[in-house]
Amino acid sequence: MDRMDDTLIDVPRGLTNVVAARTELGDVRGHEGFYHYRQYSAVDLARERTFEEAWHLLLFGRLPDDAELAAFRARIVAARQVPEEVEAVLPALARLTAGGDALAGLRMALTALAAADGFRPLYDEPPAARVEQAIRLAAATPVLLASLHALAEGRAPRASRDDLGQVANYLYLVTGSVPDAAHEHALSAYLTAAVDHGFNASTFTARVIASTGADLAAAVDGALGALSGPLHGGAPSRALDTLDEIGTPDRAEEWVRRTVAGGGRVMGFGHAVYRTEDPRSRMLREVAEGFGGPRVELAVAVEQRVQEALAELKPGRELHTNVEFYAGVVMELCGLPRSMFTPTFAVARTVGWTAHALEQAADGKILRPSARYVGPAAPQPLPARRATAESEAGVGAGGR
Amino acid sequence: MDRMDDTLIDVPRGLTNVVAARTELGDVRGHEGFYHYRQYSAVDLARERTFEEAWHLLLFGRLPDDAELAAFRARIVAARQVPEEVEAVLPALARLTAGGDALAGLRMALTALAAADGFRPLYDEPPAARVEQAIRLAAATPVLLASLHALAEGRAPRASRDDLGQVANYLYLVTGSVPDAAHEHALSAYLTAAVDHGFNASTFTARVIASTGADLAAAVDGALGALSGPLHGGAPSRALDTLDEIGTPDRAEEWVRRTVAGGGRVMGFGHAVYRTEDPRSRMLREVAEGFGGPRVELAVAVEQRVQEALAELKPGRELHTNVEFYAGVVMELCGLPRSMFTPTFAVARTVGWTAHALEQAADGKILRPSARYVGPAAPQPLPARRATAESEAGVGAGGR
Repeated sequence: MDRMDDTLIDVPRGLTNVVAARTELGDVRGHEGFYHYRQYSAVDLARERTFEEAWHLLLFGRLPDDAELAAFRARIVAARQVPEEVEAVLPALARLTAGGDALAGLRMALTALAAADGFRPLYDEPPAARVEQAIRLAAATPVLLASLHALAEGRAPRASRDDLGQVANYLYLVTGSVPDAAHEHALSAYLTAAVDHGFNASTFTARVIASTGADLAAAVDGALGALSGPLHGGAPSRALDTLDEIGTPDRAEEWVRRTVAGGGRVMGFGHAVYRTEDPRSRMLREVAEGFGGPRVELAVAVEQRVQEALAELKPGRELHTNVEFYAGVVMELCGLPRSMFTPTFAVARTVGWTAHALEQAADGKILRPSARYVGPAAPQPLPARRATAESEAGVGAGGR
Repeated sequence: MDRMDDTLIDVPRGLTNVVAARTELGDVRGHEGFYHYRQYSAVDLARERTFEEAWHLLLFGRLPDDAELAAFRARIVAARQVPEEVEAVLPALARLTAGGDALAGLRMALTALAAADGFRPLYDEPPAARVEQAIRLAAATPVLLASLHALAEGRAPRASRDDLGQVANYLYLVTGSVPDAAHEHALSAYLTAAVDHGFNASTFTARVIASTGADLAAAVDGALGALSGPLHGGAPSRALDTLDEIGTPDRAEEWVRRTVAGGGRVMGFGHAVYRTEDPRSRMLREVAEGFGGPRVELAVAVEQRVQEALAELKPGRELHTNVEFYAGVVMELCGLPRSMFTPTFAVARTVGWTAHALEQAADGKILRPSARYVGPAAPQPLPARRATAESEAGVGAGGR
């Protein structure tokens, strides 16, 4: 907005590298192949702690002790109960989004939940009530996703099991089986590593909306919308599709040469931040290798062949697997269908989005940049009404 | 996101005055008390043209001639038909949001509409299909709002009348009466003037989400979320509440002194951009004065007294009425209930949001700034699990 006494400040297009916020939640150090949540290596957290512990760390500023963790888990169990009036609307939402847009279904379901709960604008709420909204949304997200998934498949949703943690309960709701400890840990490791990762467009969206003081469901809704955009990145299912297309390790080299020659992208390889190996990728490969089996062997062999071929075809660019590649392998090992891969990412990232939104709301200043008007300079008087077109341009062609 | 070879760029907090986008859609010139859509004075457009003409101007880059306007109006009539599967879900959405959150209801309804239509990500669509999404959302918004309003009141929604333009049809749907030409023009003037106004947080949100390539419903959803925040500003109903509270012109001065002394804000007065009179306010006052009557006389008299009192109490600050003040008066004159004031603003602004989102999508670059990590510097090794708390801080108190 063009303010009095102020001069516009030009910055790189797309706001690249522009500091839009200050955060204590974490940081990505691309040079070092390292990222952290509040100073703790995110990958160490993924390996050694549970999803709930990382969540507690982000939200409350420190890792919980045993008693705090037990209390937090109980609080999450309570917060993931879906009220009847929301359950009642889920079949209709599932029908509308059965075509595959699970994120749009989740947007509606979370807004319905917030309406049923009577969420109020963040700026009208004390800190404790803001945290309550954050826990509510992130706790209910996997339950709502699993219910929408079941309904879209024509099945009745399963009821949450209060004896299960957030990760095991999610796998139970989607697959119908309580996972063993190894599978629970595998998905927990992925979710923990995916809670937050620098300042992507969805996290930024959540902060912009929260900066107006809107309720947290509005912020998460916007973040989910941004996540649904092709440029946001992140589609573990495409990396698995690649694996399927290649089929066997001996076909990998030829497949890469053909794809690169045709100008195609090799999904699952390369990342904007890391030039070293993506630390999430290395951790998830170890998790996958712990299970073994032909699928994992294929993935490891394909990774090796593709990296060799890319090193030759694109010299000077170190192209390693990114988080998508083994995330897909791990989610498949845990029994999640491909249509649930991006929604499962949202299960993790909702924790990060809500923590960022609360941090932004605590800042209290609205995020409101400016636009530079670049159209013709001189104001025009309104022309007399015309009965015929001055321009030959068709209406459809005129749209940007 | 922390990128290789790049240095963070510090800018004013809240991104104030930072150029986040380049636009040909319009500009606000605060010094001059003037704003325009594609070079045409927005207030002149509001006075002399219809809502549909301004909409066409924004979307297609020029005012329509008679034939184009007729075609555009027919296109809007077709685009405001709500599919049965969306109509079927509206009663449940209305029940959930009957507590008053009409914007949340609209968010869900538009997402449902997009799902039913099979909206695809903008980046997967050619320009004509993108424009189609824009017209669909803005055309259906008033119909969905009126239906949700009727259902929340326990009435059956009325069916749109294809012989009515967008403004008259909206008034008909909400009030049950086809407005006369004067009332249709009055609301059209307000809506036209509210289509766009610089780079506020909701417009920015729509552009951030669209920059990821997401579909337009995701962008509008996010914008509606931002609009619901108390800091976004704009609450014509509060300005009317002020009028009610004052009651008669002779009580205005005492009321202002008491409110200012108590540290309260006088709703409907003052604007971040305009130090001169808000051009929208002047235009809407003229519209209101065209109707006359005790309510308008009260508003004009209160405006006069409040401005005089504020000039004395806050010398050096020119505090004029902002758009809220007479917007509320005009909407009330047109028979709209106060609960529909902010939703009615959204009817107009959806046109602006969608035009901005399309412009951003045509740019093609993701809007992704960075955050500066400001927590403790040294990475910490994970501590051993603790059975007792190190810190005395309670969980609720720890939340930001």
